[in-house]
Amino acid sequence: MNYHSMSADQLRETGSELQKLYDVLCAAGLKLDLTRGKPAPEQLDLSNELLSLPGDKYRDAAGTDCRNYGGQTGLPELREIFGELLAVDPKNLLALGNASLEVMHDLVVFSLLSGNPDSAKPWSSEPIKFLCPSPGYDRHFAITETYGIEMITVPMLPNGPDVDACAALTANDPSIKGMWAVPTYSNPTGVTFTEEVTRGLLSMPAADDFRIIWDNAYAVHTLVDAPPPPLPVLDMAAEAGNPNRVYVLGSTSKITFAGAGVAFFGSSKENVDWFTKHLSFKTIGPDKVNQLRHAMFFGDADGVRAHMARHREILAPKFKLVLDILDDRLAASKVAAWSHPEGGYFVSLDVIDGTARRVIELAKEAGIALTTAGSAFPYREDPFDRNIRLAPTLPSIEDLRVAMDGVATCVLLAASESLLASRDS
Amino acid sequence: MNYHSMSADQLRETGSELQKLYDVLCAAGLKLDLTRGKPAPEQLDLSNELLSLPGDKYRDAAGTDCRNYGGQTGLPELREIFGELLAVDPKNLLALGNASLEVMHDLVVFSLLSGNPDSAKPWSSEPIKFLCPSPGYDRHFAITETYGIEMITVPMLPNGPDVDACAALTANDPSIKGMWAVPTYSNPTGVTFTEEVTRGLLSMPAADDFRIIWDNAYAVHTLVDAPPPPLPVLDMAAEAGNPNRVYVLGSTSKITFAGAGVAFFGSSKENVDWFTKHLSFKTIGPDKVNQLRHAMFFGDADGVRAHMARHREILAPKFKLVLDILDDRLAASKVAAWSHPEGGYFVSLDVIDGTARRVIELAKEAGIALTTAGSAFPYREDPFDRNIRLAPTLPSIEDLRVAMDGVATCVLLAASESLLASRDS
Repeated sequence: MNYHSMSADQLRETGSELQKLYDVLCAAGLKLDLTRGKPAPEQLDLSNELLSLPGDKYRDAAGTDCRNYGGQTGLPELREIFGELLAVDPKNLLALGNASLEVMHDLVVFSLLSGNPDSAKPWSSEPIKFLCPSPGYDRHFAITETYGIEMITVPMLPNGPDVDACAALTANDPSIKGMWAVPTYSNPTGVTFTEEVTRGLLSMPAADDFRIIWDNAYAVHTLVDAPPPPLPVLDMAAEAGNPNRVYVLGSTSKITFAGAGVAFFGSSKENVDWFTKHLSFKTIGPDKVNQLRHAMFFGDADGVRAHMARHREILAPKFKLVLDILDDRLAASKVAAWSHPEGGYFVSLDVIDGTARRVIELAKEAGIALTTAGSAFPYREDPFDRNIRLAPTLPSIEDLRVAMDGVATCVLLAASESLLASRDS
Repeated sequence: MNYHSMSADQLRETGSELQKLYDVLCAAGLKLDLTRGKPAPEQLDLSNELLSLPGDKYRDAAGTDCRNYGGQTGLPELREIFGELLAVDPKNLLALGNASLEVMHDLVVFSLLSGNPDSAKPWSSEPIKFLCPSPGYDRHFAITETYGIEMITVPMLPNGPDVDACAALTANDPSIKGMWAVPTYSNPTGVTFTEEVTRGLLSMPAADDFRIIWDNAYAVHTLVDAPPPPLPVLDMAAEAGNPNRVYVLGSTSKITFAGAGVAFFGSSKENVDWFTKHLSFKTIGPDKVNQLRHAMFFGDADGVRAHMARHREILAPKFKLVLDILDDRLAASKVAAWSHPEGGYFVSLDVIDGTARRVIELAKEAGIALTTAGSAFPYREDPFDRNIRLAPTLPSIEDLRVAMDGVATCVLLAASESLLASRDS
């Protein structure tokens, strides 16, 4: 029943039953991990063909020997494939190394040290700020934090970041130079930005050198039959009169092998030229053999879509299981709310304010590792101590069932403690 | 005969004969390239086994699934192999991405933005300088130039950089924060630093946060039977009381596939920890599948040595041909001097002062591309307009013969022009 309607005695009794459940959980000596968005081994198996590619081939379609130096912009045929999937003109899309995180890092670093094409001076010459729709991706926030860029939390709404809040900030503060964004199946909320929100972000007044780091990490990672088509965000930015505003990122990390994939960067010609020029000081070129391997493996964009359908077969039952357990165990109590993602890698769970840290602590003591409290917020500070990021992809179905049932027990126990404490006070 | 002993008439006559030779050269419509240190296709063929590795394997010796995220420090078994070859304790050696240039870039960038473990403040907080032994590697100098670090040219002597000149500078100028170095078969001079020079560089007084970027790119790239054993430079730095002074870099780029290899970074524990911490903001880990591929291909350090012996079989005849042509065509005239490298990728050619640019221009008009004049010097300024870097590895023996004969003609023609002009004036 609804915990909020319970009397203190009822809460005490419920808490005592939950404590027994929790003791049993602890006694089981679990060692389960829901912390990171890592693919499961069966997902990695889907790409094992890559392990013996490119085989006896080493030239791309243009005849370039992929074994030698050069080719800063990456393999044309692979840029074609991901240009279609990311809705970016392949000639403004670079195929790069094994980590889109590195590209984002470098975009920030090059701007700090030299400014971007629209900067009057390097970003590092004065204090600057980034907008951080939250809950968001901890590794994004870590980049801005480590370089001393002030992070401003803006709310993440069901249709994307709160555009009005963003615009009110950027219109009046030219020191706001950037914004993090995961536009499709956002980490961790699962939110996909609507076209309206996107147009708002592209047209809002902001500093000339303001940039949106459009990390489309989950562009093709759907759990449903009709995924949202990718928005041609670079064309839309140009239409909005801000052609240089957006940096599009993509990656095969969660398509083929995490860590042994290919990253993509797309933007306006001016931004791409600027980035390529800076890139030329740090590398003679990306791993073209790995790009050739991927181009051969996929064939074309439909090859990627078919491959993602196989991922979906593995992932959909895991997400369903998580949602079923949350529904079974937590719906009636009204002490939690959670996302129902149609893609991506996470379920975002909101518990009673002030109990997220306690839930994570209880789970840890029971041998269930959850993402550190506050991880989805700038400076790791969840203003309401409410949000928990669940990453259901890596564990087996059996482990996931045990872990999620345990998490539900922890959520209920923490809720009963918290509600009772507020009744007593 | 010795051009310097020629009369003006003799020079005129010689110049006229050379002009005929040069006209024939131009009429041949050549399109040859001696600009970059790229491996030849036959060298790349030596590693074609990599194209179908790791095959059905994806776990390293410790059982880690190389297909998934993680493992910031790289595969232990590959670090063992290159630890031996670079004389670095494998526990202080990281196996990283496909470009040691990127690691060097990042070492500079992290220091600019945050300082290194011995910095009182970020390098970017005041004007700083780097020592640049010259002739040196253009891509090194490009990194310092692009970030506005002042480059100070120091002479490269036959046994390594001029230590006295370096020490006189670093002892009195704490804004000198770094130094570029290619200690084995240096680019382009072929010089290998002696132990005495190395000890001098390690012990000279300098700023606490002064670093030597010890780019041991050609550690195993020998053309002779008894290559110099690698110096345990990190141990020597510790003995000299400057344990954090050296960053050791290595790479398989010119061992296996250029651009699809593995880079290495070794240093003191304190430096490695510092670098790894910064690295964690830009990447979740290197391409471990590619590292596994390389570990399987090499087996052990002797596997690398045996592989390099096969490179030598291809390269030694090319270097011999270059030296033979230079000797045949240029020795008697006394208008040029050149290196006799025992390893590495280059022959460094010094022509009469003031004629390098002219030689390169003449060669270009004849369809022979040489590295841009001044490339081996900071700011591309050869103080004597004397040095030409020859890269004989990529062309076939036949092309190399034609190209080098053409280069010799250009050197002699430019010399005759120059000497005649000085006679006339």
